[in-house]
Amino acid sequence: MGQVAWKGLFLSLFDYKTEKYVIAKNKKVGILYRVVQLSILAYLVGWVFVVKKGYQDTDTSLQSSVITKLKGVAFTNTSELGERLWDVADYVIPPQGENVFFVMTNLIVTPNQRQATCPEVGRTEPLGPQTPTKPGSASIPNAVCQKDGDCPAGEAVVAGNGVKTGRCLKDRDSIRGTCEILAWCPVEKRSKLKKPLLAAAENFTVYIKNSIRFPKFKFSKTNVLATNNESYLKSCRYSTEHPYCPIFLLGNIVEWAGSDFQGMALEGGVIGIQIEWNCDLDKAPSECNPHYSFSRLDNKFAEKSISSGYNFRFAKYYRDAEGVDYRTLMKAYGIRFDVMVNGKAGKFNIIPTIINIGSGLALMGAGAFFCDLVLLYLIKKSNFYRGKKYEEVKSSSRKSLSSPALNGNQSPEQLGGL
Amino acid sequence: MGQVAWKGLFLSLFDYKTEKYVIAKNKKVGILYRVVQLSILAYLVGWVFVVKKGYQDTDTSLQSSVITKLKGVAFTNTSELGERLWDVADYVIPPQGENVFFVMTNLIVTPNQRQATCPEVGRTEPLGPQTPTKPGSASIPNAVCQKDGDCPAGEAVVAGNGVKTGRCLKDRDSIRGTCEILAWCPVEKRSKLKKPLLAAAENFTVYIKNSIRFPKFKFSKTNVLATNNESYLKSCRYSTEHPYCPIFLLGNIVEWAGSDFQGMALEGGVIGIQIEWNCDLDKAPSECNPHYSFSRLDNKFAEKSISSGYNFRFAKYYRDAEGVDYRTLMKAYGIRFDVMVNGKAGKFNIIPTIINIGSGLALMGAGAFFCDLVLLYLIKKSNFYRGKKYEEVKSSSRKSLSSPALNGNQSPEQLGGL
Amino acid sequence: MGQVAWKGLFLSLFDYKTEKYVIAKNKKVGILYRVVQLSILAYLVGWVFVVKKGYQDTDTSLQSSVITKLKGVAFTNTSELGERLWDVADYVIPPQGENVFFVMTNLIVTPNQRQATCPEVGRTEPLGPQTPTKPGSASIPNAVCQKDGDCPAGEAVVAGNGVKTGRCLKDRDSIRGTCEILAWCPVEKRSKLKKPLLAAAENFTVYIKNSIRFPKFKFSKTNVLATNNESYLKSCRYSTEHPYCPIFLLGNIVEWAGSDFQGMALEGGVIGIQIEWNCDLDKAPSECNPHYSFSRLDNKFAEKSISSGYNFRFAKYYRDAEGVDYRTLMKAYGIRFDVMVNGKAGKFNIIPTIINIGSGLALMGAGAFFCDLVLLYLIKKSNFYRGKKYEEVKSSSRKSLSSPALNGNQSPEQLGGL
Repeated sequence: MGQVAWKGLFLSLFDYKTEKYVIAKNKKVGILYRVVQLSILAYLVGWVFVVKKGYQDTDTSLQSSVITKLKGVAFTNTSELGERLWDVADYVIPPQGENVFFVMTNLIVTPNQRQATCPEVGRTEPLGPQTPTKPGSASIPNAVCQKDGDCPAGEAVVAGNGVKTGRCLKDRDSIRGTCEILAWCPVEKRSKLKKPLLAAAENFTVYIKNSIRFPKFKFSKTNVLATNNESYLKSCRYSTEHPYCPIFLLGNIVEWAGSDFQGMALEGGVIGIQIEWNCDLDKAPSECNPHYSFSRLDNKFAEKSISSGYNFRFAKYYRDAEGVDYRTLMKAYGIRFDVMVNGKAGKFNIIPTIINIGSGLALMGAGAFFCDLVLLYLIKKSNFYRGKKYEEVKSSSRKSLSSPALNGNQSPEQLGGL
Repeated sequence: MGQVAWKGLFLSLFDYKTEKYVIAKNKKVGILYRVVQLSILAYLVGWVFVVKKGYQDTDTSLQSSVITKLKGVAFTNTSELGERLWDVADYVIPPQGENVFFVMTNLIVTPNQRQATCPEVGRTEPLGPQTPTKPGSASIPNAVCQKDGDCPAGEAVVAGNGVKTGRCLKDRDSIRGTCEILAWCPVEKRSKLKKPLLAAAENFTVYIKNSIRFPKFKFSKTNVLATNNESYLKSCRYSTEHPYCPIFLLGNIVEWAGSDFQGMALEGGVIGIQIEWNCDLDKAPSECNPHYSFSRLDNKFAEKSISSGYNFRFAKYYRDAEGVDYRTLMKAYGIRFDVMVNGKAGKFNIIPTIINIGSGLALMGAGAFFCDLVLLYLIKKSNFYRGKKYEEVKSSSRKSLSSPALNGNQSPEQLGGL
Repeated sequence: MGQVAWKGLFLSLFDYKTEKYVIAKNKKVGILYRVVQLSILAYLVGWVFVVKKGYQDTDTSLQSSVITKLKGVAFTNTSELGERLWDVADYVIPPQGENVFFVMTNLIVTPNQRQATCPEVGRTEPLGPQTPTKPGSASIPNAVCQKDGDCPAGEAVVAGNGVKTGRCLKDRDSIRGTCEILAWCPVEKRSKLKKPLLAAAENFTVYIKNSIRFPKFKFSKTNVLATNNESYLKSCRYSTEHPYCPIFLLGNIVEWAGSDFQGMALEGGVIGIQIEWNCDLDKAPSECNPHYSFSRLDNKFAEKSISSGYNFRFAKYYRDAEGVDYRTLMKAYGIRFDVMVNGKAGKFNIIPTIINIGSGLALMGAGAFFCDLVLLYLIKKSNFYRGKKYEEVKSSSRKSLSSPALNGNQSPEQLGGL
């Protein structure tokens, strides 16, 4: 007897249970449902699968390596520096050719600085009656003094170049003077830049070699065109006509970023070179190509920012015959280029496909739910359909018929249909 | 006839089919189901949508550009270097102001090194009876020798400074000596640091300008407050009261990272400055603001690590009148600051919304499944409900009634209900 | 009366509505359905949850900080430089020990360059009859000239070293000459490299310290083994036997990257050191360990690329007794190491779990839909089952019986069953 029951249990495992449906021969709701179904299907196929490639697994954490190399020389002839030629070793900082490189386009040189005392204001002339110009100490409020006591010895000048020695240097007959400081003297002059020194940098070229790898898909590529035509790679320049040439003219880069090269060369700035790899790895590797875009990164608040443009100071150190160090301070203005690599690769994968199909099917359920609401509560004969859809059973001994009675009690279903 | 059939087929396409439900007037299960529904709804709305913003598409691959600029001077007076003033060009390495910058706070200088031969141990005095201290060769085991044969010519000293010349330099009467090496001589002395040279670096400031861009949403912003008050941006210091001021006091950064500046200045270290952009782009762009946090990156195993702290060696090269190169070797200790930018932007997008609603609805189905189990197998009258829910049909010629017989055979359904 | 209706409405809220199922005692479809169910379950458990860890929330945007430190010395004896010892301060560029570092392995030195005029071709000898070799001007086509007019003054030589002075320098009796340029003279000689200068770099070691942080999970770790055995960390070398030792032999790194060190040292190259953190944070933190891999980043198109290998130029600037600058230009070849850190951490989270279960359940629905198709249209008695599953109701006054009539009209359902 028990064995029979177990056998029944086992057999019933393989009975197929399927939901019972009620066919409501209502064309309005039927058409509505088909429309909803088609919309969901169109959305799923068109948007999720075709446009968003929802059937793909994506990898956005790419590994990237960038090598950059500049070419070009510039000749300058200034009263300060005389005739001078600038080559790569002079104007590229740092020299290593990494993804961030700086091209010097302007320069304030303060030669022969030595550890000594001098006035804080940027004036190299001796103080005397022949210099009627008031020291520009207003620009460093902390260095303005009227007596020695205003310059406490050992105190660093705020936003200045050295520490006060305790003396206040004044022009004769002048009330306000400037503190004497211990510093690398003479201090840098605050000069107004008129035109960039290395205006010729506009014609320099940069070769950018970018190797990328999508670790999830073990896919590698470089931005250098796989061509055998070596002379093409030597002579080409990136442009819309040559989208896969890895050599860029600096002037073009700045122009494409929406800036003016000469203006930028004067005050300095930062240009972003975005390399975007948007690869569909279900296609051939040769269709995975970089897309370049250029933008200026520092200009948004350039007018009001405390450090518009881009500059930094560095020094070259020398030692004289007596073994005393001196240096040439350079305030370098120029354009920093940040090569930023960004990418996404997609490849067919069953999991996102299933998640997207699954949520599409669940959406069908939501559509059916919406049409049910219309059928059961919004159309004229909804009472009738409600009675058909919901079969009331009570655990009373009196068996209800399978076609439930249509009575006023059905109306409470309105809230319970969810 | 065929045309009629096709017309029927076409018309039936627009019949609406809806699942037939059985109303079980069982309040216990009904309440249970409502509770489950409400829980799922609360989870979906509260957690998925409100807290986790599940209706948003997110972009975590932001592009970032960082410009840093240090300000401050320090005065030192040591027996080795004399009175000396240090400014930005002296203590910032590299000078370019990128996202990683190093502020030198301590220094071991070995001046006037020339290519020559000298003992490996860091002793500059001539070997003689007046130097009773044993050479500290224990610290470089590979350089300890008893006879010339222990110093094979041309072999590099492991963890040392040069290659052996083949001679063993010994104090008279001493058994153990040290190999002579060809190196930049004299070699660096192993001195114990007592206090940081540039303790004043605590008061240096750094201006950090960070421009970010979320490529997916084409949204750009910088961390510099969009204010017209230029003097505020010149004089402010970042603190909890001034969360959008981009100027930081080095001492504060180290303190917020949970370290002691003077201790760190002595041995060096690495501080991470995390800038976090957590932007809800459904709101106004002005609500997308950076959040700064500071942490020490090198301290976890500082006690036991082979290179606790942070230091590196570099040299300044000079040439004397005879054209011979010599150099000043510097072992620089200091604090490296890594500005790390990290961000996430979210914006309403229909796809994650649909995925989340879809999985929420599917969850409702799981809830219904759970309540079905209760109704069909756990309550007293489950047999009755089971009979009502499952309508048995056999493909026998004898038609079963729509209200299925309640018999013992129903029990096998127990496992088949899934 | 209204109150009674409201009460009924309220009570009916807690009626439990459950879908009515039809049990089709068809073993074939039943077994098919169970197979489909089991497949989906196996896929969900095995692939989604066990293999892909679909129950975890993942964080792929890790923050990373890298400190590198090289050790090793090399001795060279060349006719140009004489006996010379190279230590860390000489061959590591930049010296700071960041995640990208360059080890110089070969060098073309052009000493004593001064601002002057000289021929563009790389020949330092004075032009005269004793130099019968034709200037190698073919390599710089733009510098080839026949008369002074071919060298317009002030024009920069394309791919050259300076600007033309307007003179064409020719050997006597020679037709073709080379333009005279203003440049850092003498210009660099184009010499063919035979063997790397610092071949000994193969035995240098690099210590890589990598601290990572997964911001989403606030989890930090470093790659330095948390051991108290300090001497182990001083003497170990990374290998498959010592996978957690952070000290690497350069020669090994290059070998593991699939390259030949001596060849690479000659022409330069870029090696990527990938550190991969693949952490299951549901396990103990000690199970979250780095995995290193090494790859060459520049070799793919090495043969045909315009700049195979890796090199860059930099200069050391000196000042002579008269205060005139001169420099030593170095063209440094070597290996750049890019330490790239990449990682993923996963931790149990309810949301992806629910999304995955939800889409699994939705998939069950898709399975049921598929089996329905089989039951209703593909098996012999599908007409019968179709009649049982779909209960036709018409909103006619005549009530249809609950067991719908089996007639030919059912066939149109074929398309409508979706």
